Order: sequence, then C-alpha cells, then structure tokens
Amino acid sequence: MTDTTFPTVRLNPKGDARAIRHGFPWVYANEVVMDRRTKGIKAGTIALLEDADRRPLGMVAVNPQSKIICRMLDRDEDAVIDQAWFAAKITRALAHRDRMFDQPFYRLVHAEADGLPGVVIDRFGDTAVVQPNAAYADVNIEALVAALIEVTGVSTVVMNGTGRARTLEGLDERTDVMVGTAPTSAIPVQMNGTTYMADVIGGQKTGLFFDQRPNHAFAASLSKGARVLDVFSHVGGFGLAALAAGAGSVLAVDGSQPALDLAEQGAAAMGVSDKFAVRKGDAFDTLTKLAEEGEVFDVVICDPPAFAPSKKTAEAGLRAYERVARLAAPLVADGGYLGLCSCSHAADLTKFRNASSRGIGRAGRRGQIIYTGFAGPDHPLMPHLAETGYLKSVFFRL
Amino acid sequence: MTDTTFPTVRLNPKGDARAIRHGFPWVYANEVVMDRRTKGIKAGTIALLEDADRRPLGMVAVNPQSKIICRMLDRDEDAVIDQAWFAAKITRALAHRDRMFDQPFYRLVHAEADGLPGVVIDRFGDTAVVQPNAAYADVNIEALVAALIEVTGVSTVVMNGTGRARTLEGLDERTDVMVGTAPTSAIPVQMNGTTYMADVIGGQKTGLFFDQRPNHAFAASLSKGARVLDVFSHVGGFGLAALAAGAGSVLAVDGSQPALDLAEQGAAAMGVSDKFAVRKGDAFDTLTKLAEEGEVFDVVICDPPAFAPSKKTAEAGLRAYERVARLAAPLVADGGYLGLCSCSHAADLTKFRNASSRGIGRAGRRGQIIYTGFAGPDHPLMPHLAETGYLKSVFFRL
Repeated sequence: MTDTTFPTVRLNPKGDARAIRHGFPWVYANEVVMDRRTKGIKAGTIALLEDADRRPLGMVAVNPQSKIICRMLDRDEDAVIDQAWFAAKITRALAHRDRMFDQPFYRLVHAEADGLPGVVIDRFGDTAVVQPNAAYADVNIEALVAALIEVTGVSTVVMNGTGRARTLEGLDERTDVMVGTAPTSAIPVQMNGTTYMADVIGGQKTGLFFDQRPNHAFAASLSKGARVLDVFSHVGGFGLAALAAGAGSVLAVDGSQPALDLAEQGAAAMGVSDKFAVRKGDAFDTLTKLAEEGEVFDVVICDPPAFAPSKKTAEAGLRAYERVARLAAPLVADGGYLGLCSCSHAADLTKFRNASSRGIGRAGRRGQIIYTGFAGPDHPLMPHLAETGYLKSVFFRL
Repeated sequence: MTDTTFPTVRLNPKGDARAIRHGFPWVYANEVVMDRRTKGIKAGTIALLEDADRRPLGMVAVNPQSKIICRMLDRDEDAVIDQAWFAAKITRALAHRDRMFDQPFYRLVHAEADGLPGVVIDRFGDTAVVQPNAAYADVNIEALVAALIEVTGVSTVVMNGTGRARTLEGLDERTDVMVGTAPTSAIPVQMNGTTYMADVIGGQKTGLFFDQRPNHAFAASLSKGARVLDVFSHVGGFGLAALAAGAGSVLAVDGSQPALDLAEQGAAAMGVSDKFAVRKGDAFDTLTKLAEEGEVFDVVICDPPAFAPSKKTAEAGLRAYERVARLAAPLVADGGYLGLCSCSHAADLTKFRNASSRGIGRAGRRGQIIYTGFAGPDHPLMPHLAETGYLKSVFFRL
C-alpha cells in the first residue's frame, strides 16, 4: 500500500527548521523549495522533509494545494505510514481517553495533538465518525479505518467529509458509511450523567460536541433547583446537563428543529420531559422576546456558533458576542449566572471576555467572572499551535 | 461608629472617571487632586469620590499611604459603611458559595470581586480567617467581624494580618483570635472528597489554599491506580486528592516539616497512610535525586510558590518555572501526566505555558496540553482587574 521510495521536499532558507525540530507540525508553502517536482507531488503523498542543508527532518504528508504544504507525521525518517503506524497513534490516544472517561463517548483523535494531523475521530460507543481533513488521510483512509477497528473494536465507521477544513485542503465533500450499517436512529450518548441523542449521519459536525464536557459539568454544578435557559442549545448540551444535576426547569432555544427534536428525545430518555421545554427560533429574536415577556432565569447559557471563525470576521464576531451578552443579561435573576461560550479561533479569551463584559455592562448589569473553561481533555492542544484552543466558556455571576 | 459627614476626594483631569463609572474599583494616587486636605486624610477613612467636575462617583475607602489611594466601596453616595453594609456584601457572597459547595469550606470573600476591596475571608466550618488587607477594613474590623458572625454563624474568627498586601497598604503585621478560642489543633477540611488538615493560626496564608480546588479535582481524575508525585505539596493538596480518587501511591515533597506533618495527618484521617509517603527537602534537589534514583511516576504535579510575584521578578520567575518543568519531566512515565502550576501575577498564561513547554522540551520530552485551569469559583474575578487571575494550572500528557 505504501511505496518504499519517497519524494523529498526541501526547506528553502525561509523555512523554520528549528521550529520543526522543536515540535512545530506544519510547513507552509512559502517555506519550501517550490520546483516543478515539488509542485507535481500528488496531494496526500508521503515524503521525506529535509532542511535547507539536506538534513532529514522526518516524514511528512504533502499537499501542494494547501497553504500548509507539509504536515509532520513522524520524526523518524524510516517510519512507514501504514495500518500499524495508524494503530500505534490510535492506541496511544485511546489510553488517555480510557484513563479519563468511564464510558466510550469522546473525541478519540484530535488531529495534530494526537499525532494524526488533520484527522478527527469521535467515538459514540460502537460507532466512530472519522473526519479526514488532510489529503494524506483521504488517501490512506483504508489503513486508518482498519487500524481504528483493530484498536477500538468499533463495529460501524462513518466517514464524514464535510466542513471548511477539507475545503482548505482542496478535498471534496462526501459522507460514507465505510464499515457496518448506517445507524437508523440517533445514538444515545452518556456524558456527565446526561443522555444526549446524536445523529451521526445527518447532524451538525460529527453529531455531538464533546468539547463542552467540562463546561457542561460546571453549568450543571450551578443548576440544582434552578430555572435554566439554554440558548443555541443544539441537542441540549447545557440544558440536559443541568437537568441531570437537578435543575427545576430548562428552556432550550435553537434555530434547528431536528436539533430540538433530538434534545427532546434526550430529555425523554432521562425521564425529565416534564421539566424540559423547547422554543424554535432565531436566538437574538428569542432573547428579545423573552425579555419582553418578563422571563427571568437563575442560569442562562449561550453557546453560539463561531461568529469569528477567521481574522477577517473577528470584529463583526466580537460585536455579535457582545450582543448575545447584552440580550441575555436582562434575563438573569439578581445573583444568577450567565455562561457565555465562543468557539471562534479569531476571538481570543481576553477579547471574548471583554466583549462579554461590555455587553453585560450595556444591559445595565455588572458581573464577576467565576469560571473560565476550555475544551475537555479529549481535545488536547499542541503547545506549538495555540490556535487549536478555539473553545472558551466564561461564566459570570450577575 | 461612622461619621455622617465625609471628606471629599476629587479626581484631577488625569483621573479616569469613565473607567470608574464602568466598574473599575481603584483610583491611583496620581489621579486625584492631592492637596493638603487629601494628604491629611487618615488611612482607612471613608470619603466621597467626585470626578473633576465635582459630580459624585460614590463612596470610597481612602489610604494616602497606598498607591491605590481610593477603593470603591459603593456607587451610592448615600451608602453608610456599617455592619449592615458588610452583612449585605457577605450575604451575597455566601449565597454563591452555598450554591457551589455542599460543605462550608471555601473562600467566602475574595476582595474586590465580592464587593469588599482588600478583604479576604476563608471559611473552615465554624472558623473564619479574615485578612483585612486594606486600611478601611482594619479601621472597621469590628463591624466586619460582627457582620461575618451575623451572616454565617461562625463561632471563631481569626484575624490574619500578615503578607505583602498589608505592607503595600502601610499596615502592620499581626494575628489575633478576635472571637472564640484559638483552635488547639488542625481543622479537618473537606474538599473534593478529601480531608485536609488546616492550621489556621501557624500555617501558610490562611492555613489552606482553596483556590486549587478544580485543579485538584482534575488531577484526581487522572490518578486512579496511579503512582503520583506531589511536589511543593504543602499540606498535600494534589496528593491527597489523588488518593481520594484511588491513586496507588503518593509521594509528597515539601520543604516544610509542619506542612508535611499536616499532610500525613490528612492521609491518616482518610485511612490511606499506607499509600502515602513524604520527603522533606528542597524541591529542585529532590526532583534531581528522584531522577538519579530512577523513579518514575504516572502523574507528577508541581505547585510551587510564586516565582514571579511582580514584574521585576518575571524573567527570573519564568526561568524557575522552566526549570521545574525540566526537572520534573524525566520523572513522568511515557504516556503519563505532568501538572504544572503558577500562582504568579507576572507570569501570564501564555508565558507560563511556554516556559513549561520549553522545560519539557529541554528534558527531551514532548507534551500535549490536556487541561488549563484557574482558581475555583469561590475566587471570582472582576472583569476590570485581569491581574486578580493569578493562578494557572496546566496539565501535559507526555
């Protein structure tokens, strides 16, 4: 399946060999000698990376169509990228999840930080959803999936080839059930003592957002007996966690009826349907209407989609986060809590926190910050890629 | 106890009235009209703060001996700073802790963010330790303590007047048992299912560090069956939490014999003395020796004192954090965990994380970041005082 000879890609004098040696996993297109041979390398090919003095740096995956032309796979120049190699990476990733979690519901592989650049694998019990967001993973998908089954024993593997990351790699959009049969109904997922229903075929991303696990848990710790409002609820992430912790009532707001249906199925599975209500609609409009209706909640959480996914959208995104805070704050009881989340790369923690504070201030309220959380431990970060820390969750007491 | 007329302090044109109106709680000495009358105000006096146009901004505590000459107490110019006023602040602070915690062991008042500038109150069941780190709190200590008893019903109140914050305010060092009798032995404290022994009279700070609660809990979640090393252990913060979560064995290292004695008492109270060992010594030396002895641990946590308490000490401090990481990393098993903490104001999260990564790299290891935590929710932050977010805890998987 793999060749025994590899093309070579060489850094030009601009190439930062030192960063690579210190663990930085990417080489940008302007850092390599871009001759006809390099330009002609097929996307997804494994190659040997050399520094400008022709000293080997390791085995990389090449994609001349991407700004990230090389992704470091292995510093060992003799490494062979085959099923055994994928299995070793997945085994190491699994050991960490096995230690952290009692049940097999988690992000199993979080791309670069788990040693599999561009590859995301979410696990839902016996079903795994793979996102091969780099060309080499597409090319080697058979070996990757075989390794996944070998290591985890999952019976169904869904390949989810959608999203912005694939576009940046020049890859097409497609979703396949590669192994097993497509689940005909939503999969019940256990997290924080909560049951979520995940639609791994038709849902958003891989069907469930595992990244909010610690922040769900924090919200739950505030919610005993509380009136809780979960805005941008998706399948009920914060709201159902609050109910699992004894919330008095939860109202979930989302623009997607399928997501709200799954949230209701989750509440039913937990036996708390009587305390759970949903409201379909635009979040901004609904926040305004709830205020007009004089509604007040002890805990309000807003977990919007990425308003600032790129630098270009950063300013408009921060204004949108401020607006969320401004519209949500009036709904929080005196002494109550407001949890605000951002999954935007371009809104760093300080900027996001400031935008949130401004919004709270514009609503005529004041808040203390009682919690700042990030993605859970199944979403590890490479120290060299600060950007991978996209998720922020800040809770205020008003 | 309080006068009905107050002196007035006025902002000069440099004074940032807008910031104050937006919630900033401090006025610096160079922001006020520093006439003879203002200079003559006795430290701890309550005064009316006005902007440069003589419009009232609120009631402040004045200390001409401090760089922070005014601390905002109440935006209501008619507010009377008496026992009822203190009681209202403490009641509000208590409601939050009651919601967060099942047992009365927490920081009850965290200064500015809880509306009591400069005042820290830690609660150990029926005993409270008060740190009046601003002059007005010293002056009004009787009203403050009366309010504390009125609201919480504690039977013993210790006044702990030690530390750098008091020096900056020009206050003397003293420790008094103000109400009740001094505890004759350490107080057992329940946190994260762990028993800690706190010496509220002779121990460090108020006797126990409540701030690490969520980070202790995270370390515990990694520690089932693990060999754990707790360096700079103090009374066993991380180590005993790991044992409560089923660690196989814990070695605690600290330079203070009294702290290690308390840690051993905690382990005894939990019935896990057989799995708990201590080693007195300099942390750097001990890390080096343990490596020489070929010791390996599944989880290593280092929670050193503030190496970079001020901007002046920032560089040396970051080098010390790097050194901790470099000496600790070799002791971590492959696939094991390294938790590194900083309670330094001057080492921000990015700098601290980078120093830690560098140290790990210099030890020839590589790590992914799986967790970044801060102080617990009983240590709220004012959005306007980023500095108050001093505690960082970063866990790497190596």
